[in-house]
Amino acid sequence: MDLIGYIESKREDNLNELKEFLRIPSVSAKSEHKPDIERAAQWVAGKLRAAGLENVEITPTKMHPLVYGESLRAPGKPTILFYGHYDVQPAEPLELWTSPPFEPTVRDGNLFGRGTADDKGQVHIHLKALEALLKTAGKLPINLKVMIEGEEEVGSVSLWDFVRQNRERLKADALIVSDTAMLAKGVPSITYGLRGLNYYQIEITGPSQDLHSGVFGGGVPNPITILAETIAKLHDANFRATVPGFYDDVAALSRQERKALNSLPWKEKEFRKTVGAPALCGEKGFTIVEQLWARPTIELNGIWGGYIGEGAKTVIPSKAYAKISTRLVPNQDPAKIAKLVERHIRKLLPKTVHCKFEVLSTGKPWVAPYSHPIFQKAIHALEAGFGKKAVFIREGGSIPFVTQMHDTFKVPCVLLGFGLPDENAHAPDEHIALENYFGGIKSIALFYEQLATP
Amino acid sequence: MDLIGYIESKREDNLNELKEFLRIPSVSAKSEHKPDIERAAQWVAGKLRAAGLENVEITPTKMHPLVYGESLRAPGKPTILFYGHYDVQPAEPLELWTSPPFEPTVRDGNLFGRGTADDKGQVHIHLKALEALLKTAGKLPINLKVMIEGEEEVGSVSLWDFVRQNRERLKADALIVSDTAMLAKGVPSITYGLRGLNYYQIEITGPSQDLHSGVFGGGVPNPITILAETIAKLHDANFRATVPGFYDDVAALSRQERKALNSLPWKEKEFRKTVGAPALCGEKGFTIVEQLWARPTIELNGIWGGYIGEGAKTVIPSKAYAKISTRLVPNQDPAKIAKLVERHIRKLLPKTVHCKFEVLSTGKPWVAPYSHPIFQKAIHALEAGFGKKAVFIREGGSIPFVTQMHDTFKVPCVLLGFGLPDENAHAPDEHIALENYFGGIKSIALFYEQLATP
Repeated sequence: MDLIGYIESKREDNLNELKEFLRIPSVSAKSEHKPDIERAAQWVAGKLRAAGLENVEITPTKMHPLVYGESLRAPGKPTILFYGHYDVQPAEPLELWTSPPFEPTVRDGNLFGRGTADDKGQVHIHLKALEALLKTAGKLPINLKVMIEGEEEVGSVSLWDFVRQNRERLKADALIVSDTAMLAKGVPSITYGLRGLNYYQIEITGPSQDLHSGVFGGGVPNPITILAETIAKLHDANFRATVPGFYDDVAALSRQERKALNSLPWKEKEFRKTVGAPALCGEKGFTIVEQLWARPTIELNGIWGGYIGEGAKTVIPSKAYAKISTRLVPNQDPAKIAKLVERHIRKLLPKTVHCKFEVLSTGKPWVAPYSHPIFQKAIHALEAGFGKKAVFIREGGSIPFVTQMHDTFKVPCVLLGFGLPDENAHAPDEHIALENYFGGIKSIALFYEQLATP
Repeated sequence: MDLIGYIESKREDNLNELKEFLRIPSVSAKSEHKPDIERAAQWVAGKLRAAGLENVEITPTKMHPLVYGESLRAPGKPTILFYGHYDVQPAEPLELWTSPPFEPTVRDGNLFGRGTADDKGQVHIHLKALEALLKTAGKLPINLKVMIEGEEEVGSVSLWDFVRQNRERLKADALIVSDTAMLAKGVPSITYGLRGLNYYQIEITGPSQDLHSGVFGGGVPNPITILAETIAKLHDANFRATVPGFYDDVAALSRQERKALNSLPWKEKEFRKTVGAPALCGEKGFTIVEQLWARPTIELNGIWGGYIGEGAKTVIPSKAYAKISTRLVPNQDPAKIAKLVERHIRKLLPKTVHCKFEVLSTGKPWVAPYSHPIFQKAIHALEAGFGKKAVFIREGGSIPFVTQMHDTFKVPCVLLGFGLPDENAHAPDEHIALENYFGGIKSIALFYEQLATP
């Protein structure tokens, strides 16, 4: 039987097996699910073996085990490192689920359940693609290293220990990740760019203690007012960041890339509907897609100070706080940007207050050279697997794992995502479109097959 | 024995009796203290009878009883309505008290305990002044109506029912309240001005739901940023409110009053120390005393939106909130100011957000004509009672009771306060200076005596 015929014949079996995987509540954030986590790791290891991988190991870590397997029986062929995770987000609030989170259920062409899209469903796509290759050709066409972790939803700490300790062993010609989303239903996509993320917290102190706003109001510096005045100066009238030097290293989009991004079947109307604000607001001179994917931002993520309960309290607080993030694009340097932002904020503040500026995290932007042959093979495999035109997209968010793997191994990373933006990855009623699950298995199988050809 | 001699002879007795009063934990906010509240009301009623008042009644209310008594046996003499409260703030946090809150203790010339300054100590000053007048002259020199409530610390709801139902009965030539503070130790004071208070809450809605700041950041209106930009526009570079019309009705201080206020023994150095900010900040063109007492303000009392927990969350929130208050001075009209503030804020907001503007409360400013004879008699009584120069002061805070009584009865209100600004009225280690307690009894007795003279 040919590859596609075999995969078609296994639809029912594959779906049932995925449901089995999804029924294990492998919630990494909750210690009571420790046995489920162990069970999920065992389950994954078994399927890796069934797909022809060898030296399959469940590596214990300080938190949750990591499953690794490899198949190195294709001399002269490329070696691929595939990464995924078997842990899931907590399912709460349970009452908002239409069907129970750990009882996978098909409705309207979608499979509902915690982990369907993020990331068990996508991991299973690879497991089944490998199995199909093995069963139809008798062996895997390329060399494979598979690493499936159990801590993605809680910070991947053990993963990096494992990567450091197994750097030589993990070497590959490319990294494949399936943990992202397609642009839209019916539009298979490869994500080739991510924004970086710096996250800051500032604490403004005016009076050394909370003061009564009647007794003291009008004569003392109010940290809330001063924080607001500072935030207000972070953008100019064109909604550009006012931080000096912020845009210095920003790589402009080529004419060709700009044209490609703006020609995508991206639905502005749906975007507006999802946002639901009276009007949109972004950097002047750029389309929304450019604003979201290719332009850096400075964004407020939280603010607090003074009395925030019900009713009234006449206080002038001692302190006010803000959480601020900058999304970064190539070739901005996170460390440099953090310094520029701190310097700018300190310069904006009056002498009436103290400021504590903390950098909570920094993260590089990432962009892949999508003219590289592996990306071309991937896009063709997607088109063949789905029978639809596939596209290259960017994402406005950040996946620190990708940047760090890229920095560690300096090889192309191909983000082949089979989720959809509205599949509630971290929310109730998480689901995956069956058409993408089945199309994904075919695409990945074809991709791995094509990687074996010159 | 003469009046002052009698009061001097009773120092020990009076202090012991005050301690008895203070030992009753009449915390109005806590239902488990209901029996203590009843006990305190009974205690006050007994002392009113002992001071020569008649028709002493404990009026039950929906919450805590109100104690009323009168003495109308001085025909042709003025009638005074004295107001005070026998309830106290909760004592928590108990561990911060040097001596237990309901075991009154003298240290360094101060009596420590919950209610010493606010307001049991000050009520007791009046009780003992009346008793001294009765005991030395055989009868009270003026007509008196005394109203001591038990809900001041929880909103005085029943008080206003009582005032409405007893409007005729409560009529008097002047209202006396002892629930404020002196300017400083050794400076007996009469407060003749209070600022009014309007309190607002605004809710800014941008996106209809919380959004991921990676996926959406840079293309959507962030309500925190927009709220901050709006707040930043509420003051100009001279720290004047930018609300159009805000200052239109502000009564300028007369040259004479300005001079008097700025000549007070007010210690800027101590003020700066209490505030503890790197520098002060207020409306240009006015001294600090003027800024605090005689100028209106627009002040931020609270702000919140987005993620305010530990660490980072990459959210663009749907909503951001602020609590804002305006302190008002004569002759600003609270309803008019509320409208001006709302109109201004709505005008400042961009079209990208919705705004809900709520007026949580409004309150008039108040100022007394301190050239009125009763104020002159009060100031002389203070000077005689303390043997020190007494002063007229204003307060930046608001006492809604005073404004409302003033509006109800249209008579002068004399605020004779014997607390000090740093006596921890609502905090642990509340205390009253014994010198002010004893000076207060003498001053009040002399004041009531002098009110009987033409």
